[in-house]
Amino acid sequence: MIFVDGLECSDFDRDIFLELNRGKMGCVTVTLGFWEDTIESIDALAKFRDLVRDNIDLVEIAYSAQDIRRIAQSQRCALLLGYQNTACLGGRIRMVEIFADLGVRVLQLTYNNQNDVGSSCYEEHDQGLARFGRELIDEMNRHGIVIDLSHVGERTSFDAIERSKVPVAITHANPSSLVPHARNKSNDLLRALASRGGVIGLATYPNIAGPYVESVDRWCEMVARTVEICGIDHVGIGTDLGRKNTQAHLDWMRMGRWSRIVNYGAGSASRPGKVPEPKWLESTETFPAIPEALSRTGFSPVEIEKIVGGNWLRLYEEVFACRKQDAIAA
Amino acid sequence: MIFVDGLECSDFDRDIFLELNRGKMGCVTVTLGFWEDTIESIDALAKFRDLVRDNIDLVEIAYSAQDIRRIAQSQRCALLLGYQNTACLGGRIRMVEIFADLGVRVLQLTYNNQNDVGSSCYEEHDQGLARFGRELIDEMNRHGIVIDLSHVGERTSFDAIERSKVPVAITHANPSSLVPHARNKSNDLLRALASRGGVIGLATYPNIAGPYVESVDRWCEMVARTVEICGIDHVGIGTDLGRKNTQAHLDWMRMGRWSRIVNYGAGSASRPGKVPEPKWLESTETFPAIPEALSRTGFSPVEIEKIVGGNWLRLYEEVFACRKQDAIAA
Repeated sequence: MIFVDGLECSDFDRDIFLELNRGKMGCVTVTLGFWEDTIESIDALAKFRDLVRDNIDLVEIAYSAQDIRRIAQSQRCALLLGYQNTACLGGRIRMVEIFADLGVRVLQLTYNNQNDVGSSCYEEHDQGLARFGRELIDEMNRHGIVIDLSHVGERTSFDAIERSKVPVAITHANPSSLVPHARNKSNDLLRALASRGGVIGLATYPNIAGPYVESVDRWCEMVARTVEICGIDHVGIGTDLGRKNTQAHLDWMRMGRWSRIVNYGAGSASRPGKVPEPKWLESTETFPAIPEALSRTGFSPVEIEKIVGGNWLRLYEEVFACRKQDAIAA
Repeated sequence: MIFVDGLECSDFDRDIFLELNRGKMGCVTVTLGFWEDTIESIDALAKFRDLVRDNIDLVEIAYSAQDIRRIAQSQRCALLLGYQNTACLGGRIRMVEIFADLGVRVLQLTYNNQNDVGSSCYEEHDQGLARFGRELIDEMNRHGIVIDLSHVGERTSFDAIERSKVPVAITHANPSSLVPHARNKSNDLLRALASRGGVIGLATYPNIAGPYVESVDRWCEMVARTVEICGIDHVGIGTDLGRKNTQAHLDWMRMGRWSRIVNYGAGSASRPGKVPEPKWLESTETFPAIPEALSRTGFSPVEIEKIVGGNWLRLYEEVFACRKQDAIAA
């Protein structure tokens, strides 16, 4: 059983890598950027490589599903490189190949704002994939990059699911039928995602998990209800943990450089700052509490394995394989 | 009477500046970029300054309405600096002030693709100004930059007209009721533009002027019909002349870096290349033929003065004045 966390936005350092190891985490997708342009994004990736090299006893960057298995078997945590936006591409279609070559395996189509790809969950309107977005989906497919729809608008998400030749991901969100929030996803969308083999990573981020963060058992109740919506093969975990995120980090996520006006992201004027992580998952150190609680909730060992990592591994395997085929074809 | 051309995308050099002078052109808005990022855009502006310095006997960059009048009175052509996209801002709201300080006076909200501001006339859908777009309109107002909607989608255009505190421009397009084309504008939009003091610059670009480019008299018939739609105070000229544009230049406009697939812009598979400019306006050298033809069409001298430059000057005056007030307030 390999534990996989579909998304974190922690400000990683050795302390956090130690927490990952103590929590027996096998694989985490990290966030290398939100609003950064191409060179800033590459710089962040290069810095992250240094950090990983300095902590190679604890973590290693994974470029394939085999890498994930090998690294997890060595009692270390595999790290998948991702950005929570396509700003890193700078509108250049050929940058997809470049970022794939640099090891990027997950890209979210939009962060909180509309862009040249499509629309976000926080825009007033969303009319689906734009011209660049359609070509981008094809290019991400070709280069084996996971398409992440977590902050993406509903219509753009439907379009992306339909256009992608391989399963797509919602790495960190919850069902809006359980926790109403702009960031969460409708049952229709979750069913469309599942019908094409996609996976949703359920989040412990309090702003979008509502009453389900009160305890690990309550949270596993949300898992059970989500499985009822879209099936046991399509539910995983994407904590959205933001370990060591400061207020400045949070402001950057929310306002970037696009706004001079205070913006609360998934929070609100009444919850403006960083919300405390749930007591039972302040870091990934206590991640093993989840499979234990899933067992109490009534899930079988086979089902638990799927939820805590197996579904993500299957999706990664399928998406990353496209890259391999493409390389052979070239 | 000062002749004003609301937009050209020529690849300027001394030859073209000589044509401007022979055509007695008083003011032209130039295109410094389409898809270029911030530093590329600033570099293009810096290179253009060199070009203007080397030809200061023929042209000068104008930063105010007074500049335009002074330069035109000296028998030279005033040049307004503009970009046909907001890619130059790189999603940074504070770049508006920086570009205004560098002398930029006209920005088109989108070129041919959706972006973080809004949607283009070539996208399948347009759901209006996005979050960044709304803040951008306010910022452009504050810094006295003309908001250009020529390639912008219909709904985004309505939103921009409504939000802007000063008149906005459609620098180069025609009424779609006269020439059906994605790039042209509905009567409703033209009336909304006019109701807020805006101006449309009618284009001689054959792909969007249809049968009206056959002769200068036919073209002036289009002017007359547009005046019927939105009024004598709201119609100007924006030729969209692309002197010395090569096929490579055209490919850059159409495909930029966003696509690997051939795209025809305002052309089509049957008209893929650069279309010849109308015989009666192959360059601005023959621009004076327009007021002569407007007279034959039945316009009075006062009306002709408005069409060939007066309406643009009034709009520039009003928009640029915001910048002055802001500087005083700061």
